[in-house]
Amino acid sequence: MPEIRPCIAIDAMGGDIGPKVNIPAALQVAREGIRVILVGDETELRAELARHGGVGDLPITIHHASQVIEMDEKPGDGMRRKKDSSILVACQLVKDGRADGVVSAGNSGASVACGMFVLGRIKGVERPALASIMPTEKNPVVLLDVGANVDSKPYHLAQFGLMGDILARDVLGVERPRVGVLSIGEEEGKGNLVVKEAFELLKRTSLNFVGNVEGRDVFTGDLDVAVCDGFVGNICLKLSEGLARSFGHVLKRELKRNMLSRMGAALSMGALRNFVRTMDYAEYGGAPLLGLKSILIVCHGASNPKAVTNAIRMAATYVEKRAHEHLADELSKHKELGQFSRHKTQEESTTAPA
Amino acid sequence: MPEIRPCIAIDAMGGDIGPKVNIPAALQVAREGIRVILVGDETELRAELARHGGVGDLPITIHHASQVIEMDEKPGDGMRRKKDSSILVACQLVKDGRADGVVSAGNSGASVACGMFVLGRIKGVERPALASIMPTEKNPVVLLDVGANVDSKPYHLAQFGLMGDILARDVLGVERPRVGVLSIGEEEGKGNLVVKEAFELLKRTSLNFVGNVEGRDVFTGDLDVAVCDGFVGNICLKLSEGLARSFGHVLKRELKRNMLSRMGAALSMGALRNFVRTMDYAEYGGAPLLGLKSILIVCHGASNPKAVTNAIRMAATYVEKRAHEHLADELSKHKELGQFSRHKTQEESTTAPA
Repeated sequence: MPEIRPCIAIDAMGGDIGPKVNIPAALQVAREGIRVILVGDETELRAELARHGGVGDLPITIHHASQVIEMDEKPGDGMRRKKDSSILVACQLVKDGRADGVVSAGNSGASVACGMFVLGRIKGVERPALASIMPTEKNPVVLLDVGANVDSKPYHLAQFGLMGDILARDVLGVERPRVGVLSIGEEEGKGNLVVKEAFELLKRTSLNFVGNVEGRDVFTGDLDVAVCDGFVGNICLKLSEGLARSFGHVLKRELKRNMLSRMGAALSMGALRNFVRTMDYAEYGGAPLLGLKSILIVCHGASNPKAVTNAIRMAATYVEKRAHEHLADELSKHKELGQFSRHKTQEESTTAPA
Repeated sequence: MPEIRPCIAIDAMGGDIGPKVNIPAALQVAREGIRVILVGDETELRAELARHGGVGDLPITIHHASQVIEMDEKPGDGMRRKKDSSILVACQLVKDGRADGVVSAGNSGASVACGMFVLGRIKGVERPALASIMPTEKNPVVLLDVGANVDSKPYHLAQFGLMGDILARDVLGVERPRVGVLSIGEEEGKGNLVVKEAFELLKRTSLNFVGNVEGRDVFTGDLDVAVCDGFVGNICLKLSEGLARSFGHVLKRELKRNMLSRMGAALSMGALRNFVRTMDYAEYGGAPLLGLKSILIVCHGASNPKAVTNAIRMAATYVEKRAHEHLADELSKHKELGQFSRHKTQEESTTAPA
């Protein structure tokens, strides 16, 4: 008797080309035993499923939702105005206990907003954080927050450390993740006001805290979790994506420049393909929103089926490993973080208003 | 009669291998007519010059300084304790009117501290900024501040915009630089508290302000100046350097994996070399510290002679174009930036203490 795997609600309309990417991903994970609820326009979804030969006896169901929050729609507006949008309905299925997690390649801001609003925070979490799992020369690194919060306070950063640690342990299988705080010098005492205090808080946790890390340490593979405010993390994430893309463009341009290098490139094609694969963001599929009572994974709008497939797998693993319970445990063990920080009135008055 | 070119004081002891890099650079620029004062241990410098065939009739002189602030020394300590250090003496030569600018590949923190302390700020500048000139797919982009300041206020960011604009115009020859503020969404109103107010201030300037730009916009080449706080900029700079290095490692590893791809790589060598050149940080040599009464350029400790050569050329161009005068003019035209910002008491109380 095979064990029953988690049920993931997929915002099937989400993404630049919606069902065309989400349906193949759903079929793939369903073959692996993950149960799937496709949320979106029933007629459109049935048609797309039919194009792939139908559902057969795979554990896939459809839940109709009549609206879609468009990629360029303002998240707040979309959430308020479209009560029957695929992303909101998908989150509602989790809240109602009919699914265990959500994956969406739709409007990221709307996905985060719906997740925050519908799924509910774990007790003690002030600010859920969006984590990005990035490829490096060796093992992947978790960078968080990459955009759910700006103007974070020191104890938010400390909580992000706990969240990233659980993700690295439960989902990436790292035994004792090395957690660092992103700063502008390795020595203690370097950084801005918020990071300096976060450093003090992180030292007091049970984490394997390695102190300040610099931008250049992120991609060496010698770090498992890099903690930062969402403003910094979002810029880092997009900067890395942009730089990777520019590298690709320039490399391609140079290799095409003359016959000799075109021949060389043809011979090296296997190596160049491996290179691209190592640096492939689709490998980890999407960014989990951590700190909620269940899991929501936000995929890039331009995701391919592989990325969405991997995101659904990640959501299922997260549920199977009971990562949200581990996180709740850790947070309850570190309640003093918030209290400690709140007593530091200087920080309170110098970082961000409530 | 050839025109007399500027005189640049070089911290000749600075850098991981000091004179071995700085002397070839000095000889090269002196051949182009730039006058050079080598600051450092006279015996050592004479010996190194002799190894390169001596000075001949090139415009190079030596100014003895008996001490060196080591690369791992605390900048403040070094500056206080070593009054006869090569970097401090080099700055003093500029202050005394015997040189027009300084270039150093030594301890970056100490170079910035000496520059700030000795050279003096242009009237109206609250915080000098360190600018990095980064290669992109097309033209280079100026990113500033990359580490001279943390916890910047909105009007500091606005001043950084004016500084970057002058650098792009006078040194990079961009007619009407496109200036953006680094944020987490293109729409007005996206960002953290400081960036949102900086956006308002930048709109009021005479700059060609293009609004918020995201991390992915930095390397496309469609932007000339990206403004940010030094905490963000330093992380971005080091992240880019680290990512570029990791790309190189992975590409090399893959190309060496088997005979076929090794042959291919050999055929494409020219293209791969061009690729590296396009992405080469040495092309722009160093990071100018802007907002001072004269120019100081900080080079990476691991700089090669090409990087230092280009940094000295940049310093000379900056002086020849009278960029510091243009900056003083611009700042005097935008005096209201500081005043406007200071009246916004909310920002004053929520970003950083004095």
